[in-house]
Amino acid sequence: MTKDVALIVGGGPGISASCARLFAKSGMHVGIAARTPDKPALQNLEQTHGVRRYACDASKPEAVALLFQDVVRDLGVPTLVVHNIDGRVPGIFRKGIAEADASMAFETLRNSAFSAFLVGQQAARLMRENKPDANGTKGTIIFTNASAALKGFPTSGAFAMACQAKAGLAQSMARELMPQGIHVANVPIDAAIGWTQEDGTRAHRLAGTTVDDNMADPDYIAEAYLQLHRQHRSTWAFEIVLRPWVEKW
Amino acid sequence: MTKDVALIVGGGPGISASCARLFAKSGMHVGIAARTPDKPALQNLEQTHGVRRYACDASKPEAVALLFQDVVRDLGVPTLVVHNIDGRVPGIFRKGIAEADASMAFETLRNSAFSAFLVGQQAARLMRENKPDANGTKGTIIFTNASAALKGFPTSGAFAMACQAKAGLAQSMARELMPQGIHVANVPIDAAIGWTQEDGTRAHRLAGTTVDDNMADPDYIAEAYLQLHRQHRSTWAFEIVLRPWVEKW
Amino acid sequence: MTKDVALIVGGGPGISASCARLFAKSGMHVGIAARTPDKPALQNLEQTHGVRRYACDASKPEAVALLFQDVVRDLGVPTLVVHNIDGRVPGIFRKGIAEADASMAFETLRNSAFSAFLVGQQAARLMRENKPDANGTKGTIIFTNASAALKGFPTSGAFAMACQAKAGLAQSMARELMPQGIHVANVPIDAAIGWTQEDGTRAHRLAGTTVDDNMADPDYIAEAYLQLHRQHRSTWAFEIVLRPWVEKW
Amino acid sequence: MTKDVALIVGGGPGISASCARLFAKSGMHVGIAARTPDKPALQNLEQTHGVRRYACDASKPEAVALLFQDVVRDLGVPTLVVHNIDGRVPGIFRKGIAEADASMAFETLRNSAFSAFLVGQQAARLMRENKPDANGTKGTIIFTNASAALKGFPTSGAFAMACQAKAGLAQSMARELMPQGIHVANVPIDAAIGWTQEDGTRAHRLAGTTVDDNMADPDYIAEAYLQLHRQHRSTWAFEIVLRPWVEKW
Repeated sequence: MTKDVALIVGGGPGISASCARLFAKSGMHVGIAARTPDKPALQNLEQTHGVRRYACDASKPEAVALLFQDVVRDLGVPTLVVHNIDGRVPGIFRKGIAEADASMAFETLRNSAFSAFLVGQQAARLMRENKPDANGTKGTIIFTNASAALKGFPTSGAFAMACQAKAGLAQSMARELMPQGIHVANVPIDAAIGWTQEDGTRAHRLAGTTVDDNMADPDYIAEAYLQLHRQHRSTWAFEIVLRPWVEKW
Repeated sequence: MTKDVALIVGGGPGISASCARLFAKSGMHVGIAARTPDKPALQNLEQTHGVRRYACDASKPEAVALLFQDVVRDLGVPTLVVHNIDGRVPGIFRKGIAEADASMAFETLRNSAFSAFLVGQQAARLMRENKPDANGTKGTIIFTNASAALKGFPTSGAFAMACQAKAGLAQSMARELMPQGIHVANVPIDAAIGWTQEDGTRAHRLAGTTVDDNMADPDYIAEAYLQLHRQHRSTWAFEIVLRPWVEKW
Repeated sequence: MTKDVALIVGGGPGISASCARLFAKSGMHVGIAARTPDKPALQNLEQTHGVRRYACDASKPEAVALLFQDVVRDLGVPTLVVHNIDGRVPGIFRKGIAEADASMAFETLRNSAFSAFLVGQQAARLMRENKPDANGTKGTIIFTNASAALKGFPTSGAFAMACQAKAGLAQSMARELMPQGIHVANVPIDAAIGWTQEDGTRAHRLAGTTVDDNMADPDYIAEAYLQLHRQHRSTWAFEIVLRPWVEKW
Repeated sequence: MTKDVALIVGGGPGISASCARLFAKSGMHVGIAARTPDKPALQNLEQTHGVRRYACDASKPEAVALLFQDVVRDLGVPTLVVHNIDGRVPGIFRKGIAEADASMAFETLRNSAFSAFLVGQQAARLMRENKPDANGTKGTIIFTNASAALKGFPTSGAFAMACQAKAGLAQSMARELMPQGIHVANVPIDAAIGWTQEDGTRAHRLAGTTVDDNMADPDYIAEAYLQLHRQHRSTWAFEIVLRPWVEKW
């Protein structure tokens, strides 16, 4: 059995770092791509878990094509690809539709939905040549998504556009690629997300009986992704919404 | 009571022309915007129904801003705006995700979803200054949508992105603007659409008892839009899926 | 053209009375069935609008069969049937799942969902023998539903069961009967509903510019039902969610 | 750490048997309740995996109350309850709404949705007194569901009613109980399901690269259930739709 190769596109101290650590611990070759791969959180991953870092603006077709070439050369053909880009430009939050900046809306759409298209496309091209693994899977493509994929909230039109675009893409890809042996999943995280800080402590503490677990813990999100990748193709899930126990929905 | 002003963005011989005719017959001032407003179907509307034509590439922020300025100057502040742009570039149909042209996917997203954002934004800015009409409505914004807004079909990823982006935008705008008195609606047409040809005959015949009504008739779609605009705000519908009786779903 | 025959099952001073009045004014023969057809609101309808009253416990198969026989004899074969039964027994509200009374949950399910099955079944049996009208419609079956059809709220499990059961029935019937020329619709009213009081005044006042229209007005709900019945079969809507402009969703 | 106690309500050679085996192998005390607990498939489970069998008609309030009392006495308070009753009476399949037998429809509703209410209620009453486990979970309640929970298919009205009723109940319970530490999940299996035959062979063979895995394998469904039970409460999933890779949807 050949080794799994995981590529995580979009890199920060939250879900991406948790995925990188868990995938590496599970015996995969792991690459992580980010606009600024030199941020400390990612450098740590290289040292502690042998994660390979790549610089990539995933909203650019050529950059994404090059990324996959590099990963194939360095690590092998990916069997697990996670698109983990939120894509919101900083000034976009909580603006009414009348006040919103149209160019920021456009950038959000490009950063999030279009980059998902580009990453999904490269993954599909490569994975369909893979041999099925023991679970019948040629590869798994996971799109991290947000509450806005489920519901368009007020003063959040651009983000709703981007998230639902990504969900639509994922659905279309799932219907097309699953019968070809490629597992596609959309995972809206319906919650604020905590993360591991650079000093190794958690940005929010989690324990069985405290109230600190009212945010989604990225380590558990990573676990859910690994479970998706290992599902047997007789029972694939396309969409899983993850939310903390106390979340209103 | 002041006269309704309707603006239809996206212009062709189908839904747009049906809307223009019905709105004009209902006593509204009607404008229609299209990239090529000189096509015969639109010239006819000017002659037969006094519909004003505007040239506009609705995926360009400045062009859309200018369009609304011109409409306000010529016809008055819009009370009914229909975004009726499909946005698919010709080569995009029935391409698998691996074969799809990324730049066409991007253009589809821009033409459809981003133009919806721009048109919705200008409409919202103007309408919120309107006085409520007899039904309590300051204005109505309707987004024509497609089956892909409901379901991402295989070999159709880019269109699924665009349609679900538009649906997400519409939802967000509805939650934000309805409490401000602006009615926002998303109307997926889950069907092929027939249209009126330039010689005045119908592209598909409709009659009560024939099998020719297995496509959505744009005249009836226009009627549904007018009913939406005239709903009292105590009972607004946000989404109506229109499909012919024989359609599979 | 023969006259429309409308049957409203479930009778009170709200949606049922509004429907009865509007349908009668629109030239239909109208019957209304209720467990206690002698309540003043219904007696008034007989006097003012010639509405025929029927006693019927719609959760009993024989009672529903008999009702339709009587209606056919008195008014003719129905072309429009509205199932307007909420079905909640009084003590059921706001009980947690652990505290809820199981027998009340069962009665709610029977009163609401099972009666919808019985009414829908009788309507389907008769309507499929009708000739299509000018819109290609052999008959229209409308199920009034509630927010709980869209979302299962806490401390409301039995009602969520009943409403989603009704929605599932309506969907199944729509997919089966629409290609046979029978229009089936599910209409969740996502709001509190106002009604006309016995002295003729409104339980809540409605006006274009006041804040009194924050509840759904049954007169406008009736209007939406009539529009559904008159939709041409080239563009039928299956589901319309009606909610007031200020409603949170 | 005290031992998990699992109760499976509804017992056959498919999902229930797979769950019983997996839960027992994972170190849980396991009980299984069925109308006819003497069927060979369940007797085997007792011998091979120490699974305790209970006779119970889960559509009867007293029977369900008694079942939980017996389980608490024999095994302890349940921490994982699976409602795995389909509920369709034999003659109900593929009948149009006009031809369907109303009393069968009623039985289906009672067997499936009402029994889910009864089982969910007893589970909730007991579990809320549990201490949270290492994942912060006081207990997990899983409802097996079917495609009809997602879509009302033609000639299947009664089953659509029952499945969507169950889904509505699950949603309501999830919103109510999750903030109390009880994980509630709805799992529609969008597929035909294979099972293990009494001679120990599989009713359909599964292997990584054959075409025999086009039905859902109950062993993998059981695995998904166990993963749900072990999710940390910072990231609970409410609904997972499981379908084979080749399934149309």
